[in-house]
Amino acid sequence: MKHVQSIIAEMKDRVFSANLQLPKWGLVQLTWGNVSEINREQGIIVIKPSGVSYTEMTVEQMVVVNLKGDPIEKNSLNPSSDLPTHLELYRSFPTIKSVVHTHSKHAVSWAQAGRSLPSYGTTHADAFYGEVPITRQLTKEEVQDNYELATGKVIVETFETQSLDPMSVPGVLVNGHGPFTWGASVEKAIENSLILDEICSMGLMTESIQKKENTLPKYILDKHYFRKHGATAYYGQG
Amino acid sequence: MKHVQSIIAEMKDRVFSANLQLPKWGLVQLTWGNVSEINREQGIIVIKPSGVSYTEMTVEQMVVVNLKGDPIEKNSLNPSSDLPTHLELYRSFPTIKSVVHTHSKHAVSWAQAGRSLPSYGTTHADAFYGEVPITRQLTKEEVQDNYELATGKVIVETFETQSLDPMSVPGVLVNGHGPFTWGASVEKAIENSLILDEICSMGLMTESIQKKENTLPKYILDKHYFRKHGATAYYGQG
Amino acid sequence: MKHVQSIIAEMKDRVFSANLQLPKWGLVQLTWGNVSEINREQGIIVIKPSGVSYTEMTVEQMVVVNLKGDPIEKNSLNPSSDLPTHLELYRSFPTIKSVVHTHSKHAVSWAQAGRSLPSYGTTHADAFYGEVPITRQLTKEEVQDNYELATGKVIVETFETQSLDPMSVPGVLVNGHGPFTWGASVEKAIENSLILDEICSMGLMTESIQKKENTLPKYILDKHYFRKHGATAYYGQG
Amino acid sequence: MKHVQSIIAEMKDRVFSANLQLPKWGLVQLTWGNVSEINREQGIIVIKPSGVSYTEMTVEQMVVVNLKGDPIEKNSLNPSSDLPTHLELYRSFPTIKSVVHTHSKHAVSWAQAGRSLPSYGTTHADAFYGEVPITRQLTKEEVQDNYELATGKVIVETFETQSLDPMSVPGVLVNGHGPFTWGASVEKAIENSLILDEICSMGLMTESIQKKENTLPKYILDKHYFRKHGATAYYGQG
Repeated sequence: MKHVQSIIAEMKDRVFSANLQLPKWGLVQLTWGNVSEINREQGIIVIKPSGVSYTEMTVEQMVVVNLKGDPIEKNSLNPSSDLPTHLELYRSFPTIKSVVHTHSKHAVSWAQAGRSLPSYGTTHADAFYGEVPITRQLTKEEVQDNYELATGKVIVETFETQSLDPMSVPGVLVNGHGPFTWGASVEKAIENSLILDEICSMGLMTESIQKKENTLPKYILDKHYFRKHGATAYYGQG
Repeated sequence: MKHVQSIIAEMKDRVFSANLQLPKWGLVQLTWGNVSEINREQGIIVIKPSGVSYTEMTVEQMVVVNLKGDPIEKNSLNPSSDLPTHLELYRSFPTIKSVVHTHSKHAVSWAQAGRSLPSYGTTHADAFYGEVPITRQLTKEEVQDNYELATGKVIVETFETQSLDPMSVPGVLVNGHGPFTWGASVEKAIENSLILDEICSMGLMTESIQKKENTLPKYILDKHYFRKHGATAYYGQG
Repeated sequence: MKHVQSIIAEMKDRVFSANLQLPKWGLVQLTWGNVSEINREQGIIVIKPSGVSYTEMTVEQMVVVNLKGDPIEKNSLNPSSDLPTHLELYRSFPTIKSVVHTHSKHAVSWAQAGRSLPSYGTTHADAFYGEVPITRQLTKEEVQDNYELATGKVIVETFETQSLDPMSVPGVLVNGHGPFTWGASVEKAIENSLILDEICSMGLMTESIQKKENTLPKYILDKHYFRKHGATAYYGQG
Repeated sequence: MKHVQSIIAEMKDRVFSANLQLPKWGLVQLTWGNVSEINREQGIIVIKPSGVSYTEMTVEQMVVVNLKGDPIEKNSLNPSSDLPTHLELYRSFPTIKSVVHTHSKHAVSWAQAGRSLPSYGTTHADAFYGEVPITRQLTKEEVQDNYELATGKVIVETFETQSLDPMSVPGVLVNGHGPFTWGASVEKAIENSLILDEICSMGLMTESIQKKENTLPKYILDKHYFRKHGATAYYGQG
């Protein structure tokens, strides 16, 4: 038991810090965002409580749930209402360790426009191997039945239909809603949120001035993505 | 009397803090904004003084008026020149407890364009149940007669004509002018100002990139609005 | 002499503080801006030194010149290269007491587009009584002969040709260059710089979303301008 | 040896400070940028280490390399992966002393649009004597062979083909990638990064509102560039 307790404590620390990073980076207003982390061996997930202000939130308030989403600590606060989306992503994408949802304004704008984000440049290619996909709109039945679960399912459907690897395309735009990102760690997942918003902002401005379509050639996309990721990466300190 | 004094002191505290929140959130420049709160039982309203700088303003300077707008404290400063607009809103919308006016730049841009804000996404739907309406332009007579009162009246007319509930659409864009928002508390009213500016900004960007109209389906609007508001809400800590 | 010295010291204080306000308000980058103040009785002007960084500038470095622009203190730094523009404005607009020049980005964008700023809303009308005019481009001869003086002259020409009153339209956009503003005090002049940049930003966004031209009716322009300015003003604490 | 050690120490100080300036000025997110400085007499270059966070970076971590790019200190970190681009610029542009690369969002947007930046105003003319050029896209072979070196070569090719002087046009937009700037000192090189991003932002907004093309006449470009640069400059303290 001691072991699990210290694992949980460390998860709470990371999830708490990551949640606080979101307003600091300008990615959330008010309570519009949530971060979670999974420990697959222990079968537990730590996630932000629902509707709690970032300025009043404490590390103890982070909510611990099992893989079905049931809180496993006494007197737990309600988990983020988006928890079923996170759970579906953890179930379907076995390599991811953290999920982040924000309403960052530039990413939301692409989601609201119902458009995937084209890979216009190397800033994009350094983190996302190809377009950031947009989901289809949910149907009335999906929304009324189990909305947050359906949101997770439509993300998974998007990746399956387009044969995308969630580790090389670590994020998505949910139609009419906003971005979800993920990664091999909490740090990577929130970094991907920042990058996604930044490239969405650049994409907006690119389209406002471009005279003809100028997306990145596939061979530069390959070069930039693989110099940072994969077996032959040479960016960073190795 | 003691009772009323402490009610007033608490109202001044809240109105003062809320006014200071506006520049902190980037919603006002210089002196361009004002917050008020009503206590309907006591028949008093507390509002920002007119033209006083946010950096020099003190809690004591908050102006206390009766429902006709007459100051009820000795040596009171002049209330915000927009007071008659606030009064009209309090008279016509009996459920609201606070009114906020800003010249936040994204909301002003929609007001200046003479357009209501379509509900493009869930960020919008979480706070506004449908379009944020634009008023008609005031006539010459209305402007010359009692401009600030007429501003209140045209807001009320807009809500009546379109059968809107001010509690589910807690704000409006006054044509050529800017946003007014309100709520069941000072905190909610200023939060609605922040949200309105943010969704106006997202709406601007959405329109600049969208290839075809992509407003939120009614059933998602319903879902998001009612998961946060109303009897069956499940967002937050209940 | 004592009297003049203390007048100069106070002018230096105000001009120094106002210059520092510009980067604080986000209106200048690097050294791109300058503020001056005139004392017409003493026939002296205090202005920012040329090319000195805002982070290293001291109050003593403010440059004191006579109406011809000659420094009147020993070991004076070079005055801002835009001094001849300021001098021409002081000569031709006898009611102004301070001049501010910035390269604030939204105002520069209108200047670069070669367009005057339409009065789209009440934020504009509160400070500028009608369009903010754009000058014509300077001719080759004007630029080569005495560029900075010619800049002042083309501003004056713009106001004379359009019969504008510099006190009710306290600023201008110099074609291909940027904004100059002024006022009855240093505080008013820099406030007008802030307002001009803000309404230029709002104007940009307004035009990006408007479906038809929606400039402010003349009677609302009148109402807003005169409720803040002139004999019948009732905004502020009187 | 003592002499070289103190030269290196001073270079590390300057390169370290300049790298920290980039996030402070809002020009980089995460680790997206790098600054280097050359000492041509000693044949050494100091550059940021690859992929190290700006918040954890120390002055000692700055990487010292020779003109071939080989680290000359023991236990050196990996230099920025963009080092070969910097080296090519130092080889081909003998007058430059520092190179800066960022992914600043407005400059990236022009790079992604595949467009050179027209000289729309005097803010531009004060620092760049004419358009900021865009490179052609690299070919597949160039990218696969030695990408970072090819990036340097295509910049040099752009300047040679258009007969541009790197000291009067101290920066470039690499197609689909982003800006590189340089200068006669580290301070000038990072200043040029800031200016380039600012004028890219102004250019974006200018194009969104201009009704007809309004680039700066050649004689104003000359005037502004040469009043700040060259033998007859009179801007600043001389």
